[in-house]
Amino acid sequence: MEKGRLEAFSDGVFAILITITVLELKAPDGVSLAALASVLPLFLNYLLSYVYLGIYWNNHHHLLKACGRINGAIMWANLHLLFWLSLFPFVTSWAGDHHSATLPTAVYGVILLAAAIAYFVLQHLIIHEQGCDSRLAAAIGRDQKGRLSVILYASAIGLSFLQASIAQAIYALVAMLWLVPDRRLARALEQG
Amino acid sequence: MEKGRLEAFSDGVFAILITITVLELKAPDGVSLAALASVLPLFLNYLLSYVYLGIYWNNHHHLLKACGRINGAIMWANLHLLFWLSLFPFVTSWAGDHHSATLPTAVYGVILLAAAIAYFVLQHLIIHEQGCDSRLAAAIGRDQKGRLSVILYASAIGLSFLQASIAQAIYALVAMLWLVPDRRLARALEQG
Amino acid sequence: MEKGRLEAFSDGVFAILITITVLELKAPDGVSLAALASVLPLFLNYLLSYVYLGIYWNNHHHLLKACGRINGAIMWANLHLLFWLSLFPFVTSWAGDHHSATLPTAVYGVILLAAAIAYFVLQHLIIHEQGCDSRLAAAIGRDQKGRLSVILYASAIGLSFLQASIAQAIYALVAMLWLVPDRRLARALEQG
Amino acid sequence: MEKGRLEAFSDGVFAILITITVLELKAPDGVSLAALASVLPLFLNYLLSYVYLGIYWNNHHHLLKACGRINGAIMWANLHLLFWLSLFPFVTSWAGDHHSATLPTAVYGVILLAAAIAYFVLQHLIIHEQGCDSRLAAAIGRDQKGRLSVILYASAIGLSFLQASIAQAIYALVAMLWLVPDRRLARALEQG
Repeated sequence: MEKGRLEAFSDGVFAILITITVLELKAPDGVSLAALASVLPLFLNYLLSYVYLGIYWNNHHHLLKACGRINGAIMWANLHLLFWLSLFPFVTSWAGDHHSATLPTAVYGVILLAAAIAYFVLQHLIIHEQGCDSRLAAAIGRDQKGRLSVILYASAIGLSFLQASIAQAIYALVAMLWLVPDRRLARALEQG
Repeated sequence: MEKGRLEAFSDGVFAILITITVLELKAPDGVSLAALASVLPLFLNYLLSYVYLGIYWNNHHHLLKACGRINGAIMWANLHLLFWLSLFPFVTSWAGDHHSATLPTAVYGVILLAAAIAYFVLQHLIIHEQGCDSRLAAAIGRDQKGRLSVILYASAIGLSFLQASIAQAIYALVAMLWLVPDRRLARALEQG
Repeated sequence: MEKGRLEAFSDGVFAILITITVLELKAPDGVSLAALASVLPLFLNYLLSYVYLGIYWNNHHHLLKACGRINGAIMWANLHLLFWLSLFPFVTSWAGDHHSATLPTAVYGVILLAAAIAYFVLQHLIIHEQGCDSRLAAAIGRDQKGRLSVILYASAIGLSFLQASIAQAIYALVAMLWLVPDRRLARALEQG
Repeated sequence: MEKGRLEAFSDGVFAILITITVLELKAPDGVSLAALASVLPLFLNYLLSYVYLGIYWNNHHHLLKACGRINGAIMWANLHLLFWLSLFPFVTSWAGDHHSATLPTAVYGVILLAAAIAYFVLQHLIIHEQGCDSRLAAAIGRDQKGRLSVILYASAIGLSFLQASIAQAIYALVAMLWLVPDRRLARALEQG
């Protein structure tokens, strides 16, 4: 199985998710500043989800570029990652509508955590697949940023039961950590 | 007619269907665990439809890889398959909203059955198209998994009039049967 | 401007339109056969629009295959065609919800007519573009099927003010005429 | 990072946005001419947004064609542009529902202005990226049309507080200015 069609399909899903999330952003009821302001929490949540999907798309691109062969396990690990990402519109809408509530904020974190684990599994399968670029394993190394993200997501889920805004700040912080594309990987691949 | 644009178009439809189905998953009314639990049946239906679409995408990919030339009949057989798959969001939403009701469960099975038959027709046309890989016919052989699926879908449609949950269990069982990509085909193609 | 990205963009729009139209097919209110039957007119309209979009995609594919160079006029003629096709979900939903009413049926015909004219303009520009395959002009010839369709659409729009079902039968008839891919074109291109 | 996947992803987003905007065009309540006329303002807004997205897609295509290498900054500048464009369905729906109101008209202009600035940033990064076609810089030159657009958008935002229809006329005027693809660029690239 060549990776061309896997990339094309994944790109399609990423493009749809990133644009469908904004469909939840319903036009305000009325034309006042107050009506516009009422969609602000949902807008901020949309912005955060957009940034996360951009990060995943970017890193997904680097990950697959380093890999020549795709097998069934990688295909399903990829679909598994896309499944959790496909829940972004759902949690973005729910968490945005109830931005100070515990449960939606915690569930948003659960989806982020599940997507991070799914990405970790995909990365692991690609590294161990024969025929893949050994530089990938060296470049990712101990994957400290990935491990730190998982710890931060888990902490944020717990803290959302104390105060939703703390959890939201942590979600935004992790996005900041990843906004820079994976330079280790980019650098290692360029040296080849 | 080359297959490149047929694959690109089909990938687009698969990517959209797999992500659009989740759009039916409306944010819960409220922030309680009970509100979240109320979307669980629809979520499980979404998960099942997601797995089915993933299976079809994967097998569709293998099927087209083995075939070099596309004619008008194959093009329309492909659109026929995509038509039944395009009804997944509709039946997923209906069966998920009424998960213990007979009719939505039976109609879900009818769509699964129609998609299976459409896939069978597409496969048949591709095997009999001159210029296609003769290994494909050998690899698919008597297509026992395909035949068994059709029997199971038909049985489940009948059984849904006794008890919807039995039919749902059969739908999930068939998905399990197919979750493994078509190894016969993959193996046969690799030997070439 | 190469045609690769124009084809990819058009394929994306076709794939989205063909799947988005079904989003208008809301889950029935209830689980009775009567509830299911109530979505039948919309379902039939969806089926008709699906077939039309499939026909346009297929002929669009043949048209662009014969042409090597794309200029700004062709690009905008293509966007013009896609604009009218993008109104299919809107008219499908409206005409399906009011299947015996005059105005929605007439407007459905207006969109079909406008799309046919837009396709005619695109075809004309591609034939007259320097560098295009001269066999294309020969293959399309006097384009009797295209001219007949325009006359039938215009007649149906008029007749919808007498009886909506006559117009709907004509729309289905024109789709039948086109269901066979453009064999003249396919044959002419194969001889090359 | 090669530009192929960036183009494919961007094409996907453009195709989705251009078709999703029309989803906001709900079927009229009723079958009278008055009901149809009531969707006219939203239809005109959809048409304007469609034209703007077509212009951006066309110019985006020319911009990337001239550039061989993509880096992380260009990737994020591209996502930044797509973010503002992804708000088109939202503002189109809001401004179309309240076509004589100040705030929706002004916010429509703010999104247009932000997209124009994002395009400016992307263009700037591509010109200054090593390995890019130096003809691009020469072709774009002082980018008078880009500068004029920004001034017109800003003026329209201000004028929308006097009279919404003046601002809307200016938005339509800027679209007219850009409807012609960037001939300077096309000409310069053809000479190479």
